Amino acid sequence: MNRVYNFSAGPSMLPLEVLERAQKEFVCYGDSGMSVMEMSHRSKVYDAIIKKAEADLKQIMNVPDNYKILFLQGGASTQFAMVPMNLLKDNKDCDYVNTGQWSKKAIAEAKKYGNVNVVASSEDKVFSYVPKLTPDMFNKNAAYCHVTLNNTIYGTHIPNDKVPNFFENVPVVADMSSNILAEEYDINKFGIIYAGAQKNLGPAGLTVAIVREDLVNNPMDITPTMLRYDTHVKADSLYNTPPTYAIYFAGLVFEWILEKGGIKEMQKINERKSKMLYDFLDNSKLFKGTVVKEDRSLMNIPFILPTEELNAKFIKEATENGFVNLKGHRTVGGMRASIYNAMPVEGVEKLIDFMANFEKNN
Amino acid sequence: MNRVYNFSAGPSMLPLEVLERAQKEFVCYGDSGMSVMEMSHRSKVYDAIIKKAEADLKQIMNVPDNYKILFLQGGASTQFAMVPMNLLKDNKDCDYVNTGQWSKKAIAEAKKYGNVNVVASSEDKVFSYVPKLTPDMFNKNAAYCHVTLNNTIYGTHIPNDKVPNFFENVPVVADMSSNILAEEYDINKFGIIYAGAQKNLGPAGLTVAIVREDLVNNPMDITPTMLRYDTHVKADSLYNTPPTYAIYFAGLVFEWILEKGGIKEMQKINERKSKMLYDFLDNSKLFKGTVVKEDRSLMNIPFILPTEELNAKFIKEATENGFVNLKGHRTVGGMRASIYNAMPVEGVEKLIDFMANFEKNN
Repeated sequence: MNRVYNFSAGPSMLPLEVLERAQKEFVCYGDSGMSVMEMSHRSKVYDAIIKKAEADLKQIMNVPDNYKILFLQGGASTQFAMVPMNLLKDNKDCDYVNTGQWSKKAIAEAKKYGNVNVVASSEDKVFSYVPKLTPDMFNKNAAYCHVTLNNTIYGTHIPNDKVPNFFENVPVVADMSSNILAEEYDINKFGIIYAGAQKNLGPAGLTVAIVREDLVNNPMDITPTMLRYDTHVKADSLYNTPPTYAIYFAGLVFEWILEKGGIKEMQKINERKSKMLYDFLDNSKLFKGTVVKEDRSLMNIPFILPTEELNAKFIKEATENGFVNLKGHRTVGGMRASIYNAMPVEGVEKLIDFMANFEKNN
Repeated sequence: MNRVYNFSAGPSMLPLEVLERAQKEFVCYGDSGMSVMEMSHRSKVYDAIIKKAEADLKQIMNVPDNYKILFLQGGASTQFAMVPMNLLKDNKDCDYVNTGQWSKKAIAEAKKYGNVNVVASSEDKVFSYVPKLTPDMFNKNAAYCHVTLNNTIYGTHIPNDKVPNFFENVPVVADMSSNILAEEYDINKFGIIYAGAQKNLGPAGLTVAIVREDLVNNPMDITPTMLRYDTHVKADSLYNTPPTYAIYFAGLVFEWILEKGGIKEMQKINERKSKMLYDFLDNSKLFKGTVVKEDRSLMNIPFILPTEELNAKFIKEATENGFVNLKGHRTVGGMRASIYNAMPVEGVEKLIDFMANFEKNN
């Protein structure tokens, strides 16, 4: 069986080189006599694996020393609760920007624990843009403000130069699930960054959080031990058994990114891939992108055809030709191509060829 | 490199046949054109994987229809909070049996959310036995009573016929992390069972919970959405992205257990393996088991030598001979052999041979 081009929004394509390396050492890792899956998380051999993963990620993202990288579980959905539970003990006021379904879920969860102020929303136009964020919109006495940096479903993003770090005392908390390691951000702009692994980092079941250490020492009393950031900061992500294999695999992805030239190079390739597809969409008479130009994501590219029949026909024929998981989210309709770091340029080129051919024939 | 015999308490040895099968289909699963790790959790191909894993586990453990099997994250440590948060909304009283470090952690966490009554403890003798449990010890109006069925560190267990399901209205909640699928239990005796996967089920990062559905519809208001059992019951474990690869791998372990004859056969083999080692310890003049005979675990067998020097010498020589991770927990000292389902009979036989030789030479 040949491998397909997998445009899934997540879990999604992983670098073939990484998969093949992991496959080779799957049953026996180095001279350990066992699989990484069988290793005690307290063993020397595993300790070297998790420490290297942490160090490599720190290097790739240029994480300052006053931040701690955590390997957690539970996905962004668990972070939606962890963030307010860890930051709202004394000050209950927090600002949220609503740029899509995941922002909405984060908002709903935070409302259980504090006073949520939705400072801006793009729901009026099915989240096809990102509201322009200005300092006057935000509460300069809030405990934090929360943004979703890349909106997987709607295909918008907030790049580094638009992060609303307006007030020194209001840390920005960011859901970076679908564009972590895909474009550069200055970590100093943030108080907490979190990301589910299943898009750009590795297997589902691992969540990475990057926390400014001074922020996370005052959780609400009701916070479960496992949902306290300080539990994991103190224990170097080894308070209990972490998702050991997922961390190992993410570590291989980090090595792959370093070999490729780091996040700067990833961003260049991602800009090239997405530009190719956006250019095609802008010049097509049949296909149409759904997002305003200035807010277009590098990762998730939704597009539509003039009729539901053509959408369905396109998805069917694309699947038959090895371009899979192109169906868009039901709230947007049409198609969505998710082109994370692991999607090769060639995959996007071939998709565009296929789309051009489809346009000619329909 | 030859594979070693890995006596780790967890993560621990996995069946070699399962590792080899997973390795073969690691990069490309069936005719999907992708790795299981790359599959959307909403795709048809993955849906078949998770549904089969659930059905196989239901069959193996003979789970009644009014229970739901959940594939979760966060380990037993997260369950320590989930249990009280989901069961103590109206009635704050709960009973806990203290049989070791994990019971103590469960107790400490429950105290945040309710009134914990520790009905019995074996802490007086370093948890080397299980207190005899009788109905008069328990509160017949408690919201639930909690037991740890197998104590990984101390090597004791509560077998099926000693589960304290004394009152129809007091559900038993059980931590089965280190003996799930290793010995038979009647699921009807329990309200909730939970287990981290990293001993008998598969890779770390997956937690299995089996919940009686009528019990879990009334969580405390402060419970995070991801820590509500009903969130996951309603969504068939697909509320958010689950640890997809770990579930797939656990599914392969379930198939392996079914092929081997199910849990009855596993228990027979485990009784045989543990009896061999206990018999050796009982007849040895040098080695000594640390647990009272009637409470001995089938899974974790702690033992000691007369001096710290001999303990250290044994562990060193054992490691050199391919018997690894035999060091006991610091609170017990000495050695511990964890012999979960995946440890072959041959591994225990060879360990005993090695121990006999060590005894001859020391």
